[in-house]
Amino acid sequence: MSVSKKLILTVVYLAFTILNGYTQIKIVVFQSDFGLKDGAVAAMKGVANGVSTDLKLYDLTHEIPAYNIWEAAYRLEQTVRYWPTGTVFVSVVDPGVGTNRKSIVLKTKSGHFIVTPDNGTLTLVAESLGIDSIREIDEAVNRRKDSEKSYTFHGRDVYAYTAARLAAGTISFQEVGPELPPEVVKLPYQSAELNGNVIHGTISILDVQYGNVWTNIPGDLFNRLNIQYGNSIQVKIFNKQRLVYSGVLPYGKTFHSVAKGKPLAYFNSLLKLSFGLNEGNFSAKYKISSGADWKVEVSPK
Amino acid sequence: MSVSKKLILTVVYLAFTILNGYTQIKIVVFQSDFGLKDGAVAAMKGVANGVSTDLKLYDLTHEIPAYNIWEAAYRLEQTVRYWPTGTVFVSVVDPGVGTNRKSIVLKTKSGHFIVTPDNGTLTLVAESLGIDSIREIDEAVNRRKDSEKSYTFHGRDVYAYTAARLAAGTISFQEVGPELPPEVVKLPYQSAELNGNVIHGTISILDVQYGNVWTNIPGDLFNRLNIQYGNSIQVKIFNKQRLVYSGVLPYGKTFHSVAKGKPLAYFNSLLKLSFGLNEGNFSAKYKISSGADWKVEVSPK
Amino acid sequence: MSVSKKLILTVVYLAFTILNGYTQIKIVVFQSDFGLKDGAVAAMKGVANGVSTDLKLYDLTHEIPAYNIWEAAYRLEQTVRYWPTGTVFVSVVDPGVGTNRKSIVLKTKSGHFIVTPDNGTLTLVAESLGIDSIREIDEAVNRRKDSEKSYTFHGRDVYAYTAARLAAGTISFQEVGPELPPEVVKLPYQSAELNGNVIHGTISILDVQYGNVWTNIPGDLFNRLNIQYGNSIQVKIFNKQRLVYSGVLPYGKTFHSVAKGKPLAYFNSLLKLSFGLNEGNFSAKYKISSGADWKVEVSPK
Repeated sequence: MSVSKKLILTVVYLAFTILNGYTQIKIVVFQSDFGLKDGAVAAMKGVANGVSTDLKLYDLTHEIPAYNIWEAAYRLEQTVRYWPTGTVFVSVVDPGVGTNRKSIVLKTKSGHFIVTPDNGTLTLVAESLGIDSIREIDEAVNRRKDSEKSYTFHGRDVYAYTAARLAAGTISFQEVGPELPPEVVKLPYQSAELNGNVIHGTISILDVQYGNVWTNIPGDLFNRLNIQYGNSIQVKIFNKQRLVYSGVLPYGKTFHSVAKGKPLAYFNSLLKLSFGLNEGNFSAKYKISSGADWKVEVSPK
Repeated sequence: MSVSKKLILTVVYLAFTILNGYTQIKIVVFQSDFGLKDGAVAAMKGVANGVSTDLKLYDLTHEIPAYNIWEAAYRLEQTVRYWPTGTVFVSVVDPGVGTNRKSIVLKTKSGHFIVTPDNGTLTLVAESLGIDSIREIDEAVNRRKDSEKSYTFHGRDVYAYTAARLAAGTISFQEVGPELPPEVVKLPYQSAELNGNVIHGTISILDVQYGNVWTNIPGDLFNRLNIQYGNSIQVKIFNKQRLVYSGVLPYGKTFHSVAKGKPLAYFNSLLKLSFGLNEGNFSAKYKISSGADWKVEVSPK
Repeated sequence: MSVSKKLILTVVYLAFTILNGYTQIKIVVFQSDFGLKDGAVAAMKGVANGVSTDLKLYDLTHEIPAYNIWEAAYRLEQTVRYWPTGTVFVSVVDPGVGTNRKSIVLKTKSGHFIVTPDNGTLTLVAESLGIDSIREIDEAVNRRKDSEKSYTFHGRDVYAYTAARLAAGTISFQEVGPELPPEVVKLPYQSAELNGNVIHGTISILDVQYGNVWTNIPGDLFNRLNIQYGNSIQVKIFNKQRLVYSGVLPYGKTFHSVAKGKPLAYFNSLLKLSFGLNEGNFSAKYKISSGADWKVEVSPK
């Protein structure tokens, strides 16, 4: 082979290698209820690096309360949309490990991938981002070698391994396993709805660091109550049937629309109606928590 | 075009791509009071990856106590100097989000960049590393697309986005926005000063994991007291005007210069005078905290 | 020089650069008892980036309880094997900083490197992965420039710096420093042993997030008791000589082999005998902790 032919082949190879690096974004984002005190997260990342050391590995959170599938669902809803198309998420909150819940990969209509047990974790993103297609992980292929004797750590042996292979381009989405019908297991909850002049909704989550209370009521629904900045609203919060909080709150643009320590209603960074105390902790003061059992009613005052 | 010309262009392109990768170090380091339990940090990193997936994203800490600007200032002081020139830091401890505090980027004389609300966060690094120049973030350009309706998460929509663009080379430092005078908002505190044979200073921070108490008194000032290893010093600690601790401590090189459980004065890893118990917790035992309200007096015994 | 010669040199240089990137995996994994609330971990990573910005830096955990060498040893045992050959670990749980404990790098027979004070941290991996060779860090060469006055943060000034240089290929393993005999400091503990029909062992660790209790008893030893899924075993747990727990547990494959809230014995993800409550907290309920002082006896029922 002539020198210039060899050169051409080398350049083509280099260009291909580099371009391939560009077409796969090679990002995996991990979420779990493992906490950061032990080696579980590091074991998952070690397995992912064993697939390819070119991956970029990030964390969503590992502080999901143990077994709290609702919160896992919420954290995906809160963050997936901010990551580039092609990002692969792994979510392992899996009280059913070892039972017959399915291990799946959801491809959303937005082009994100989520690797998870199908146990309700996808309740919110399936609605908001849409289901493009779903595949069940074929563990005959997509399971870490020599891990057959371990029944309790699918996060490491199946989910991290499959996510890394998908993100690295070792397998295509088709090679994850057989396609399933476009449906996920859903947790029941009160969707945001207007009845008369009352909006019903759910306390989706607490903004834990600051004690703010976030609902699932979006701006366009709230606007139908015709409330302006500075007006007040009546807010009732229930745990199951029990009334836990009832109060009248001014509606403000930012925390500084009220005095230090005073309550307000505002729209959070996900553009959902929220309640807080300026430089205080609303949820602790009024003993409010979150999840599908926590409902809210909002009306003009 | 001849084959060899194409080859030359290809090689030049590859070389340029690789060299460009070398000139920008593409590192962003995040700090906040968001904690790690929710999706806020992951949303910021998703936005940064949306700017460029070539960035390397690290964390300083996200466990700054809520709204504690002093501690944010201290953590930057503690770490920025150990990172390479060109590293871009994002610090979001922002009780004033939505008010008229300025959003700025500080370029230090050491060549580091810090993206932050100008609320006192830069008090210590502006003194120690020096101000090269300051620019105000022009949100007409440097704000995430479609984020105009969100008023409460500048960390994601403005700071992370601007930092990522600066670190990736998408914008130059000039393109951040208009230059401001070389001054930052400063928190008041007692600087380290010798009066007669007493050194006055501040309890800058607790070494929380071990309970050690760190002052802002540097070695060269302390040396003017002419105290040798094994000598003792008189230490008084005040919260505002109230005396909280008074004791005589031996001055040692390491914790092992005193018996287990015994107190000592020593120089910490930032070469500032500190107090601790060998394998014990000095701050818990004596109920000492830190910040601008906590002052210290040190004299020979 | 002719154009084609320059081209060849350029291509060779590019190929060399890329291949060199492949031969060094350039991964450093950090462990410590520093916590994530201050800047210590970020300072270590800044120093590592100062050596090379091409490194990929990961965390094992920084939540080792302060000074708990046993737990540091266990976390390495739990995770090192899942990372690729050539990964460099840094473990800094170092109550003896400033004393004459040695600073070493262990190369395991599996091809992993661990940079650590030799204080017992290597007790478990030295046994399980084997000692290929050990070198003492020569601080005349492998210490961050201008750090001589700091006596208390070897994690930043020596360990992170040396690990980064080793991972980046700046120094070879030989250049770490002089070779030592292939022995590490070991913490004493009860190894897993069968006496008659009783297996003796240690409570190695708690699975803190879920409250499960993990022993060091492997499957092949347990199998010599001839116990089948669904059979029960007698378990006694001692703190030093004191009996803390005695109970009869069914042996199950997964948590779902017992009702919610009920106890079981099972094999964990590291294939060691473990005890737990299905969706409950065994260690909290029975006040069980872990470490070399916690022993266990298991026999058929």
